[in-house]
Amino acid sequence: MIILGIDPGIAIVGYGVIEYKGNNFRVIDYGAITTPAHTDLTTRLEMVYKGVDTIIKSYDIDEVGIEELFFNKNVKTAITVAQARGVTLLACAHNNVPIYEYTPPQIKQGVCGYGRADKVRVQKSVTSFLKLKKVPKPDDVADALAIAICHAHANKLDKTLRNIQGL
Amino acid sequence: MIILGIDPGIAIVGYGVIEYKGNNFRVIDYGAITTPAHTDLTTRLEMVYKGVDTIIKSYDIDEVGIEELFFNKNVKTAITVAQARGVTLLACAHNNVPIYEYTPPQIKQGVCGYGRADKVRVQKSVTSFLKLKKVPKPDDVADALAIAICHAHANKLDKTLRNIQGL
Repeated sequence: MIILGIDPGIAIVGYGVIEYKGNNFRVIDYGAITTPAHTDLTTRLEMVYKGVDTIIKSYDIDEVGIEELFFNKNVKTAITVAQARGVTLLACAHNNVPIYEYTPPQIKQGVCGYGRADKVRVQKSVTSFLKLKKVPKPDDVADALAIAICHAHANKLDKTLRNIQGL
Repeated sequence: MIILGIDPGIAIVGYGVIEYKGNNFRVIDYGAITTPAHTDLTTRLEMVYKGVDTIIKSYDIDEVGIEELFFNKNVKTAITVAQARGVTLLACAHNNVPIYEYTPPQIKQGVCGYGRADKVRVQKSVTSFLKLKKVPKPDDVADALAIAICHAHANKLDKTLRNIQGL
């Protein structure tokens, strides 16, 4: 199964494409879709949509894992990032790829086996699982790979509760 | 000039299509794109995108006016509505229609000449400007028409500051 993990955002959308077969992971691609600051919102949304669309079309993605948004401080930032997440979900939907969402504690649990693991611990686990030579940067990319790993592990469990499309 | 006013949302997207010529308004269409509750988010986002896309393609829309999002209480609701607003903006962008956004006080100012006008006053002004027999329902539809009227009036002023695409 080929999984796309996405860490949603407006300036940086982290993504990670991995293959999970048996209990083995293989990295296929990872990186970030970036949009320039001081660019109008609509153009940035188009760039995010097109970037996600291109990744899905470039690989034979079976399923997508994406982080849920949680904000409790800056509502303005929450609104901007949520608009970008909306077009990210739409790009997946337009490509008929099932989407599963995970909270940050679920992702930590799925990667480290401990829902309150810190960032460094998560990044070390990601690097180890995927046999990478160093921690992927920026953090958004490591997070996207963590989401992909989390989804791979979650596949062993009942997925129906996490699918947000009723598929 | 044919203007599409949009009141963004996830359950109800209000829309109003008007023609503004000289100082005269003509209503072309208005209504609401609705998405059923208890439907998964991604499907609802697809419905919103498709609905907005269909409206733009059905009329020769010159420009779009849309309300800015302001939330200070329920961040969860803000995130959901913002995701829908993201795909709404994307549908406009994919049709190459310029988008202008307005805050609630700007809309009230543009319709009633008073930025703190109450809902009833705004609805009466909308009904009067557009020579409607009764106040359009639900409120989201009246709001969308108010945004379209606001944008028509704003056209007399310098628009460059409000265009969010750099067009």
